[in-house]
Amino acid sequence: MAIINENYLKLPGSYLFAEIARRVTKFKQDHPAASVIRLGIGDVTKPLPPAIISALHTAVDEMADAATFHGYGPEQGYEFLTSKILENDYAARGITLENDEIFVSDGSKSDVGNIQEIFGINNIVAITDPVYPVYLDTNVMAGRTGELKDGMFENVTYLPCNAENKFTPALPDHKVDLIYLCSPNNPTGTTLSKAELKKWVDYARDNSAVILYDAAYEAYIREDDVPHSIYEIEGAKEVAIEFRSFSKNAGFTGTRCAFTIVPKTVLGKKANGEQFPLNTLWNRRHTTKFNGTPYIVQQGAAAVYTPAGQQQIKAIVDYYMANAQIIREGLASAGIEAFGGVNAPYIWLKTPKGLSSWSFFDKLLNDVHIVGTPGTGFGPSGEGYFRLTAFGNRENTEEAVHRIKTRLSL
Amino acid sequence: MAIINENYLKLPGSYLFAEIARRVTKFKQDHPAASVIRLGIGDVTKPLPPAIISALHTAVDEMADAATFHGYGPEQGYEFLTSKILENDYAARGITLENDEIFVSDGSKSDVGNIQEIFGINNIVAITDPVYPVYLDTNVMAGRTGELKDGMFENVTYLPCNAENKFTPALPDHKVDLIYLCSPNNPTGTTLSKAELKKWVDYARDNSAVILYDAAYEAYIREDDVPHSIYEIEGAKEVAIEFRSFSKNAGFTGTRCAFTIVPKTVLGKKANGEQFPLNTLWNRRHTTKFNGTPYIVQQGAAAVYTPAGQQQIKAIVDYYMANAQIIREGLASAGIEAFGGVNAPYIWLKTPKGLSSWSFFDKLLNDVHIVGTPGTGFGPSGEGYFRLTAFGNRENTEEAVHRIKTRLSL
Repeated sequence: MAIINENYLKLPGSYLFAEIARRVTKFKQDHPAASVIRLGIGDVTKPLPPAIISALHTAVDEMADAATFHGYGPEQGYEFLTSKILENDYAARGITLENDEIFVSDGSKSDVGNIQEIFGINNIVAITDPVYPVYLDTNVMAGRTGELKDGMFENVTYLPCNAENKFTPALPDHKVDLIYLCSPNNPTGTTLSKAELKKWVDYARDNSAVILYDAAYEAYIREDDVPHSIYEIEGAKEVAIEFRSFSKNAGFTGTRCAFTIVPKTVLGKKANGEQFPLNTLWNRRHTTKFNGTPYIVQQGAAAVYTPAGQQQIKAIVDYYMANAQIIREGLASAGIEAFGGVNAPYIWLKTPKGLSSWSFFDKLLNDVHIVGTPGTGFGPSGEGYFRLTAFGNRENTEEAVHRIKTRLSL
Repeated sequence: MAIINENYLKLPGSYLFAEIARRVTKFKQDHPAASVIRLGIGDVTKPLPPAIISALHTAVDEMADAATFHGYGPEQGYEFLTSKILENDYAARGITLENDEIFVSDGSKSDVGNIQEIFGINNIVAITDPVYPVYLDTNVMAGRTGELKDGMFENVTYLPCNAENKFTPALPDHKVDLIYLCSPNNPTGTTLSKAELKKWVDYARDNSAVILYDAAYEAYIREDDVPHSIYEIEGAKEVAIEFRSFSKNAGFTGTRCAFTIVPKTVLGKKANGEQFPLNTLWNRRHTTKFNGTPYIVQQGAAAVYTPAGQQQIKAIVDYYMANAQIIREGLASAGIEAFGGVNAPYIWLKTPKGLSSWSFFDKLLNDVHIVGTPGTGFGPSGEGYFRLTAFGNRENTEEAVHRIKTRLSL
């Protein structure tokens, strides 16, 4: 008889965004005339810029002609894209990587979800709290955790990030093996400074741990002291895997392209202590369970690195960051304490008057018809916080802030 | 210390197509003037047809305008595509499925590789032999097998398919839990008749097993008695998951789109015997580790179902199948016994004079400069067989057959 993977059943059934959708639907039924503004889900709204559109059309035309048609490509991505990534995202920052240390994929969600497969089942996983749920859920599904108790999974090391510690997680007080870090952070919008990240790299080196570093929001960094890549930190090439995406810098959420860096110098160990390169394992996984990102999409991604592409995506990121500033300043003038939004498109506010995350969700929806994301959906340390995103259009963002300042009863 | 997943190390290091590439490269160095014809890897060569190209361009233009831009879509695929699939591929054959029983993906390789995750680690896996390596390798990586011994992994049930049993695998003589079947078959090009497939469905029902049915080559079926979907077989909706792809019917090997059917009536069991729907588990996996197929690509796939799209992809499949006939007839007139190629783009030949698969590979390359795929690369029962594919162009296919008939010394 076919037995199911019962680890899946440890996951709570109701998913954050499904519950949000349920409450919004009910509100709209009860208030059909209300104009609801969504500052909840982290999806972009600006269209793909002209340089990328043009590259996509050219690639589509290539697919129409046998002489230029592309069938199966290298699972790891075409060299025309990986060479651009290495040159622009890494060499330009003094980071030397080889072509076979980069793996192009269909998205960071897949990559950060799949990476845990190359590790044994008994590693101790550390996550920051609150956290992007995929890191945790995929480890639960793999059986690397115990049961959910009081909002936390057994055998997982939660690293609380809150206003009290300035969203800077403390090093664990025990040995952990796999450490998920995300900077600029989803959901808090805060970042790790170079000095803070150095502490983690040193910890990983001292403890033979591996850092899984999600830098999907790198393009939003404005301050000098925030590293764009973990490989800016000395020693990181021996302990860190880095995830990057075209979703948020170039609007690829519905176009799907990302990449993962696995330096050949990052080693895991066999049970007998013998060292083994993680690059070899990830290459095996990637080539066995994935057949490459669409040729057309990779050409679109390569156009991101043209001078026109760079200029155009910068304009989009600037647009979202101006939204972020409007939200931050609006919240401040409404007397609501907020974090993030300086190097990230997310604003993480402290709910006023000690309201729970979901109570504030309901209040914001009912009072001013704005949808955000309850912090508790990202983990127990998110309770009492709330996420707003800067991905809306300017008009809606300004209107939302106006409503919060003038009509939210606190 | 981060411990690696040591199951990966059970896999043999050298991969089939890498070894082929190595030998071909060496041959070309030694014989720079030789005109090598590749009938090896199963990749298509015809460009995407006009109806699909047109849909891709339209979708690219939509991505250029905020009013029609698409960000994150439903992970399971857009309804504009799933409704077409249900109507054309299933309802037209009398098969009723619901929209939430279909999961659009980036390719069948991903789907057949990932499906094993929703099952427990102790299930007994049965594969036909020879087999598409992904079924087996992904179970090895998950730890569902023992070590490789004499070319076979321990704890796996191999079901030999050869000329003696007419490539019709016998039912196992012991209980198995997960059964991978592929029809039309890669690599043998043979098919299961409705009566044969019924035996497997009945076996699965009697033994609470699940059939993982790969129908990627469905479009190549020419004979009436060969089922296009396993759900044509009575009772299959209770025991079978079906994989379909746009790679081989519509030339999407480099464009990437496929889908998987998980009927809500297919159940697995918990260790305590309680039944649980696999649809729920696969939905959880798909939404947690995947973020949808590109909007542009899904619009391209939807165009496959327009009248023009249907006519154009049929012309391409007919073209490849004419190649298959040329290869079949050419081998016959050269006195080489061959199978498949009637309902599939693959021809599986018996190596003459008892040559090993690799010896025949070398002979074919050296004598007539043709590259094929050694059968032994697909499993131990592939020894003494050899795969040729019909995906080349007509001129090369005719030239290859001419060389085999006139210059191959047997």
